[in-house]
Parts: sequence; structure tokens; C-alpha cells
Amino acid sequence: MFKAIVSAETLRTALDSVSVLVDECKVHLNEDGIEIRAVDPANVGMVDLSLSADAFESYEADGGLIGVDLSRLEDIAGMADSAQLVELELDEETRKLHIQIDGLEYTLALIDPDSIRQEPDIPDLDLAAEIVIEGADIDRSVTAADMVSDHIALGVDETDELFYVDAEGDTDDVHLELDQSDLIDLQVGPAHSLFSLDYLKDMNKAIDKDAEVTLELGEEFPVKLHFDIAEGNGQVTFMLAPRIQSD
Amino acid sequence: MFKAIVSAETLRTALDSVSVLVDECKVHLNEDGIEIRAVDPANVGMVDLSLSADAFESYEADGGLIGVDLSRLEDIAGMADSAQLVELELDEETRKLHIQIDGLEYTLALIDPDSIRQEPDIPDLDLAAEIVIEGADIDRSVTAADMVSDHIALGVDETDELFYVDAEGDTDDVHLELDQSDLIDLQVGPAHSLFSLDYLKDMNKAIDKDAEVTLELGEEFPVKLHFDIAEGNGQVTFMLAPRIQSD
Amino acid sequence: MFKAIVSAETLRTALDSVSVLVDECKVHLNEDGIEIRAVDPANVGMVDLSLSADAFESYEADGGLIGVDLSRLEDIAGMADSAQLVELELDEETRKLHIQIDGLEYTLALIDPDSIRQEPDIPDLDLAAEIVIEGADIDRSVTAADMVSDHIALGVDETDELFYVDAEGDTDDVHLELDQSDLIDLQVGPAHSLFSLDYLKDMNKAIDKDAEVTLELGEEFPVKLHFDIAEGNGQVTFMLAPRIQSD
Repeated sequence: MFKAIVSAETLRTALDSVSVLVDECKVHLNEDGIEIRAVDPANVGMVDLSLSADAFESYEADGGLIGVDLSRLEDIAGMADSAQLVELELDEETRKLHIQIDGLEYTLALIDPDSIRQEPDIPDLDLAAEIVIEGADIDRSVTAADMVSDHIALGVDETDELFYVDAEGDTDDVHLELDQSDLIDLQVGPAHSLFSLDYLKDMNKAIDKDAEVTLELGEEFPVKLHFDIAEGNGQVTFMLAPRIQSD
Repeated sequence: MFKAIVSAETLRTALDSVSVLVDECKVHLNEDGIEIRAVDPANVGMVDLSLSADAFESYEADGGLIGVDLSRLEDIAGMADSAQLVELELDEETRKLHIQIDGLEYTLALIDPDSIRQEPDIPDLDLAAEIVIEGADIDRSVTAADMVSDHIALGVDETDELFYVDAEGDTDDVHLELDQSDLIDLQVGPAHSLFSLDYLKDMNKAIDKDAEVTLELGEEFPVKLHFDIAEGNGQVTFMLAPRIQSD
Repeated sequence: MFKAIVSAETLRTALDSVSVLVDECKVHLNEDGIEIRAVDPANVGMVDLSLSADAFESYEADGGLIGVDLSRLEDIAGMADSAQLVELELDEETRKLHIQIDGLEYTLALIDPDSIRQEPDIPDLDLAAEIVIEGADIDRSVTAADMVSDHIALGVDETDELFYVDAEGDTDDVHLELDQSDLIDLQVGPAHSLFSLDYLKDMNKAIDKDAEVTLELGEEFPVKLHFDIAEGNGQVTFMLAPRIQSD
């Protein structure tokens, strides 16, 4: 059983954070909210999304699992205005999701969850440095790095107590340093890792410019990015595997 | 003789309603206004536009007929701001139309009307149901149907007294029901017909979101769509032939 | 030595006026400001830009010469908001330009000036007519002419004391007349020349709609366009060679 009402904006924000990595996903319809975990085909980027029942206008579920074509569902949610409500109801027998927006009913065929790539276990890593940064600073780091390179280094300078971003191109370089005063928070620790810019660009698309993003970073370790959505009633965690240093 | 002044917005609105179906058309320069009738090459969609002399700032004509390249004339009208006036004057000898916008003069070569597809006779049909609906509701019906199918069914449920839209895709379906309270007006009668979505999408482009559109509908019959333009000083009628039910 | 701070908007405006003609250019870092002169590969359009030290928040230079990839520098400047400051500093040893925008540092490799097309000498012409016109009128002349032709005639009617624009297409024509009252200023003299529309379209892109542009025009002679940028602290001169009359 699953029956819920949610604002189009909340639904779109939640879907966006997953669709930047995968096209299809499994959605857990838990009693206290929905949860989605997914990993991209190359096993490099992972996402863990939870959206609590409080993010919905109304929510009833008893623990089902459905498979969803994300772009299809995003298109449907995209027809509604931000503040409009989207009603979702699962038809257990036909395995279809009935979606209502102001009288318009869309019947979405679900995907067999068994045919969807297995959900990842997001590992519990003990990362030495933690940076709390505005989404806007992630955006300009990624945009600038993209002008010169296809990878980006993130690190912490323990001596000067600052977080840095580095991108080295064939002729041009980009470098950004943010200290305590530029950041929302910084816990220094040994940290320097290189990442694929393509993945970080995709993840950046799902991050609001004024979001508070917590980065957990280590030495040649994956980076974790956490941020809230839906006014704190939802949490997104991205994890991105490092690239081997090319020098 | 033809000499007229009209706001760029009125001119563009009028041209748009014809150009969604055809590239060239005959324009009747009647004493009391202009009239355009056109049918698409496949003979599926027709348009009848009349724009009375009252829609113009000034209007003089004595019954001529000209052939016009619509996209060319739309491009010219598109250079003006909405409220700017467009002056039109026919040079009978050279068969060119002189168009002035704030001192800029454009000389448009006309097309021999005989070389343009013959004008259709829009048949007088006795359609059983009449639905008066907002342009915005046509827009979302067409947009939603387009996500699942390339045809769309329009009909009236006489028992429940409602107008419905149906689109069936291979896996997903779209359904919309609008009753008396959702519509501006509804006269029930036996009505259900299937239409090509491509044509309805084109026609929808010419319909303002806040227009009042009258749909005349029957059983496997063409649909007629009527709406006003130019603050009631112009009328557009679209007619769309039905597709044979595929089931 | 070169070290300067300038608003992103001023930097972009200056670069735009050159990049409409060439991809790379030499920049003279004079004591009293920067100067750029460039000619397009076909030797048809030239630009002379000077941006005085007063256009900068701070400016120090001692006469160097650097070679710049314009689109690269425009991309960097494009990352900043209009009012944001861009810090530029030349590293003489590495021949790289360090560009800082709010803590983000971009290291731009310069181009060997000797590898860039030689700078033109903008000839001192004695042109008989001078027209001072709003950028918006140049824009609509160019836009309208582009609908019918790939060249445009500019001229002055000495008898009627007006400036005119003419474009003749295969079937359609465009004509615009602007007299003293439509122009900011007009000094009549024998003037009529034909120009390639492609070049004038490119130059038009660099001209603000509300700029005051001085056109110097003669009989089958190049046209010169002068306008201020950076609130009068910068001047741009375009020169465009005439095309031979095709009739």
C-alpha cells in the first residue's frame, strides 16, 4: 500500500538528486518515508536519498519496493507548478503508479525492481577532514575547473587551515582557497584526493546554490557530500570514488 | 486598394493562428476586415480566421486578394515591440506589400494567389456536444498526452456529465476528466473521437492560455475549436479531421 | 609589470568589442591604459580599442605587450557577476596571466605576440558625412537588412538632409530613412557605400542599444564607427571596408 501527496517542487528536488546519476532506481516505500540508493553503471558515484513522511502533505506506506523510470516521473512532475500538489497511489495488482495533478491522471508503468542494478552499500568511512560549504562555492569551483581540465583535486591545507580546489589543464590552471571565514565550518585533517569532474558536475546540478553542503574528505579516499532538501525533511548523500593521481 | 495600420501584437496573433498549419496563404482584403482560410497539405487540419476592421487602428480595403509568405511576414512583424504599430499598404502595380514600422520600410513581394493551395470549405457540421474550456486546460491535456502517445481521444461522458481526454501509450496512460465546475460550459451529447496529436499540438500553439475555447465534438467526427483574438475583433476556427480508431 | 583590478562588466565589454572580429589579439599594457588593435583575417574589418587606467579600480603597467586568447579570457570573465572585481597580474617569467575573482585564481597561458596577426594601421580618412545615431537604430537596420540580403548600403541624402539604410534582396527590400530629428546629429556630405552585412552584424553585437555611435561615411569608402565604453573611459573604433557595388 502506498498513497501520498507531495508538492511538485519537493518531488522534483528529490528525483533530481538521483537522476543525475542513474536513469532507473528502486524506491523503498517505508512507513516513515521513502528511501532511494543508487550507484552509476561505472560504480564511481553513489547516492543515498531519504525523504521523510513529514516532507509530504500526506503519506501512507507499508514497506513496499517499486522500480521507477526517473526521467518519465520527472517529466510528469515537471508539468505541475512548483506549489501544485502531486498525488501518488500505487495499484498493487497492475503494478502501476497513478499520479494525479489537478484532475489530470497519469498512469505510470513501473519497472520490475529485480531488473534494476543492485543498490550499493554506502560504506561507512572515517574521513579526516570535514568542510561545510555553500552550494554556490561548489558551483563556481566546478565551473572554473571545467574550463581547464576533466578532473579536480579537493584537499585541506592543515598548516594554513584552509580548504582548496585545484584543476590543472595543459596550459591553464584553476586554484581556489577557502579559509574558515569563507566556509560555514572547517575541521582540518590530512586530505587530498582527485576526482572526475564529470561526476562532480552532475552532482552539482542537484545542489541548490544556497544549500549548506558537508564534504567529508580524506587522502586518496572517496568524498562524501551531504545536504538537506525539503526544508530539512529530506537528506541526500553523494559519494564519489577518487581517481588515481595521474602524476 | 489596401491600406491599414495594426498593432504588432494583433498582427502576430492573427498570423500565428494560420502559420501553425500552412506556410503560405491567400488573404482576402474585404471592406470590413481580412479573412484567411487554409488547409494543411494532408487535408487534415483547417483554419478560418477573420479579423474585423475594428481590430485595426485604421483600415481601408475594397475586396482584393493577395498571397502571402507567412513566415516572412511573421519575421517582419516580429521586429516590432508588441505595442508598436505596423503600417501595411498594397502597391497594386508591383504586387508588393509595403510594411512600415517606425520609419523602417520593408517591401514584401507577394505570391501569386493562384499558385497557393485552394481554400477549403469549412463544412457546417451538426456536432452533438459543445464544451467551453480554458486554453490552459487544452495545453496541459496536449502536453500530458504527448508524453505517452501520438494520438488523443476527446469525448463526453453523458451519464456523469463530463468532458474527458484520453491518451493510451504502450505502457503508460493519461486521463483527464473535467466536469461542469471545471469547464466554462458543457452541453452533453454523444461524442468520442480520436485525433492526431501533432495537429492538436500545432493548433494549441496558437491558443492563448487564458482564451475561452469552444469545442464542438461528435462521434468519430471532426472537432471544431473556436476562439476570439484581438479582444473579440477577430475569430479563429480550427477544424481537425478524426483518425480511425486503432482498436 | 602589469597589475590591475577591473569590474567584470568593463572587462567583458572591452573584450567583446575585439572578439567579434578576431580570436586572438595583442594587448598593449601602456602606462595610461590598455590598447588593442586588430584586423580580421580577410582584412575587411578593423577594431581599435583603448581603455584608460581610469576605467580600472587600480592599474599599474609599464608598457608590456601580451598575446591573449580572447574566448578563453571571456569565459573566465563570464564566471563573475557584472559588479564583481577581476584582478589581473602578469607573471613576467612564466608569461602567464594570473586572474583572481573572489578568491578563485585562474592561471592563463599567454600566446606569443609574434605568432598573432600583425596589428593594422587604422588609416586617417577624410570622410564627408558624419552621423551620430543610437545603437538601437543600428541594431534594427542590421536586423531588417539581414532578412533580405547579405549586404547593406549606408548613405546620406544631401538634398533631404537624411541618413538612409538600404538593403535589396532578390524579391524583398528594406529601406530606412532617419532625419535630423531621428538622429542625435547629422553633418551631410556626399556619402553612399555598400558593406558586407556579416561584418556589420558582428560589430553590432558589441554596440550597446543605448550607445551613441558616430558613423563617418563617404562615397565608396570605408565606414568608421566610434563609441564610448566604460562610462567614457574607453573608446572603440570599428572600420569596415566597402564592397564593390554589384550593379
